[in-house]
Amino acid sequence: MTQFQARTVAFIGLGLISGSLARALRGSNWRGKLIAWGPREASLKRGRALGVVDDYSLALDEVIEQADVIVVGAPPAATASILREIIGKLALATHQPIITDLASIKGYVVDSVSHDYPHFVPGHPIAGSEHSGVEHSDPGLFTGREVILTPLPHTAAAAVAQIEAMWALTGAYIRAMEVQQHDALLAASSHMPHVVAYALTRALERDASDPMIHGGGALRDMTRIAGSDPRMWTDIAVTNRQALLAAIDQFEAEMTMLRELVDLKDEQALEDYFSICRAHRRDHDGILNPIAETAPEENHEV
Amino acid sequence: MTQFQARTVAFIGLGLISGSLARALRGSNWRGKLIAWGPREASLKRGRALGVVDDYSLALDEVIEQADVIVVGAPPAATASILREIIGKLALATHQPIITDLASIKGYVVDSVSHDYPHFVPGHPIAGSEHSGVEHSDPGLFTGREVILTPLPHTAAAAVAQIEAMWALTGAYIRAMEVQQHDALLAASSHMPHVVAYALTRALERDASDPMIHGGGALRDMTRIAGSDPRMWTDIAVTNRQALLAAIDQFEAEMTMLRELVDLKDEQALEDYFSICRAHRRDHDGILNPIAETAPEENHEV
Repeated sequence: MTQFQARTVAFIGLGLISGSLARALRGSNWRGKLIAWGPREASLKRGRALGVVDDYSLALDEVIEQADVIVVGAPPAATASILREIIGKLALATHQPIITDLASIKGYVVDSVSHDYPHFVPGHPIAGSEHSGVEHSDPGLFTGREVILTPLPHTAAAAVAQIEAMWALTGAYIRAMEVQQHDALLAASSHMPHVVAYALTRALERDASDPMIHGGGALRDMTRIAGSDPRMWTDIAVTNRQALLAAIDQFEAEMTMLRELVDLKDEQALEDYFSICRAHRRDHDGILNPIAETAPEENHEV
Repeated sequence: MTQFQARTVAFIGLGLISGSLARALRGSNWRGKLIAWGPREASLKRGRALGVVDDYSLALDEVIEQADVIVVGAPPAATASILREIIGKLALATHQPIITDLASIKGYVVDSVSHDYPHFVPGHPIAGSEHSGVEHSDPGLFTGREVILTPLPHTAAAAVAQIEAMWALTGAYIRAMEVQQHDALLAASSHMPHVVAYALTRALERDASDPMIHGGGALRDMTRIAGSDPRMWTDIAVTNRQALLAAIDQFEAEMTMLRELVDLKDEQALEDYFSICRAHRRDHDGILNPIAETAPEENHEV
C-alpha cells in the first residue's frame, strides 16, 4: 500500500470532480505526484496555482508516460473518445498504467474502447455540486457518497483493488456492479428525472398564462434541474438512450395510472398510492439528504 | 379604514395559514378582536395560549354572531362544506359579515355554496411552510407572496376592497382573477407537479433495484413533495379534477415529444429544447426563490 500511495496520478481533464479527487488524495497520505492534462491551459494553470496538482502539460503523451494511474474526467462522449485514444496507444505498449474514468454513463464509454485493456476500471462517483470548474473543487466532496465501479470480464482484479483503495482514501464507499445495471440505475435515479423536469418546465413555458409566476416551493424544486447544462444533458440522453427510454416508459406507466385514478375520482386508490409514495420517500430521506441541509417534507399545498 | 381595523375577525379553523394571518394582523395596527372556532379544542387552546387569537369557542353560531369578518381555513372539501353551512345560515340573516377563505381550489368551493351571498370573497394565499399547525404560524409568512382573490359576479365591490385591505396589511400583493383561471393556473403550477412527483416516486418504488438509494440532489428535489399529506392531495386532485387532467395532458404531450427526440437521437432538437427550459427557469428564479435560500442551478449530473 505504501508503494501504491507513492504513485503518480494523471488527471485527464481537470474540473470540479477530478480536482476534488486530487485534493482528497492530497489530504490523505498520498505522496505521489499529481499531474494533469487538458484541452484548456487556463484550467490547468489555475489547478496548479491552487495546489490541486503539482504540474501539468498540454502534451498528452508526456503525461501518460509519467502516469501510474490515469483518471479521465470529462462528459460521457468526450470520455469515450479520449479513452479510446489513450487505450489505443497503451494496448501494445510496455508501460501500462491503471486507468479509470468518472463518466456518469458506462455502457457507451466501455463500448467505445476497442481493446480489452486489463488495467481499465470504469468508475462513476455519485457526487457533484451546483458549481463547476477546478476552482470549486472540494476535498470533502466524496465523504459518505457512493462510487460505483463496473469492472469488465477482462479487467484485472489487481487494478480494481487499486482503484478501490484510491477511492477509499476520499471517504467514499465503493459498490461494484455490471455496466448495464449501472446505466439502468442512473437512468432511473438521475437521467429520467431530468427529462421529467425539462418536460414540466416546457409545459409551463408554453402556457400563455405563465403559471411559473405563481409558483411556490413545489415548483421551485420540480424545475430546478431544468436549469442544468443543455449540452451536457443532450450528451447524457443520447449516450444512455436505451436505459433512459426504458425508465421514461416506467414513469409514463405511472402517469397513465394516476391520470386514470384522478379521472375516475377514485379517492381510496389515490390516497393509497400517495401513501406508498410518502413511505418510500421517507425511507430514503437519510440517503437523499446526507447532510440534512434541506427542509423536511412539506405537508402544505403550495 | 380605522373602523375597518377595529373589527372582529373570526378564524374558522386555526392552523398554520390562518394563524399566520392572525399574527400578521396583530403585528399591524389591527385593533379588533381575533377569535376562532375549530373542531379540535387543542389547537384553539394552543392558539389562545400563544396569543394568536384573543379567544375561541366550540359553538360555531356564537363565533359567527360576533364576527365582522370570517376567514375559513381548511382543506378544499372541508372549506366547501363549512362555507355552505355558514352562508346558508347568513343568507337570510340581518347580520351579514364579510367572508373569505384560504382554499387552494376555488371552483369546487364556489360551486358548493348555494346562495349568492354578496359578501363572500373567495381567496387563496400562495404561501405555506413545511410545517403545519398553529404553533408554526408566522406573521411574516405572506411577505412578498401572492394572494389571489376570485370575486364572483354577485360579489359586492366593498367586500372585495375590505379583504384586499386586510391582506395588504400582511405584506402580500393581491391579484384578482376568475375562478376558472385560478384553478387552471394552480393545476399547472402546483397540482400537476405534485402528481408528477408522486408518479416518479412510485416508478422508483416499483423498481426492484431501488434506484433511490443511488439518488443525488436531483432526486432529492424531484421527490420531496411526494412526502406530502396523502389525504390532502387526494382532496385536491378530486376537487380540481378537470383542470388537473388538462394540466396532466399538457405535461404528457411534452413527455411524448421528449421521448421521441431521445429515441431519434436528435441532438440539435434536444439541446434547443433544454436551452428553452433553462432560459424559462432562469427568468423565474427570482419568483421561485424569493428569499434566495436555495442553491443556484446545478450544472452537474448527479
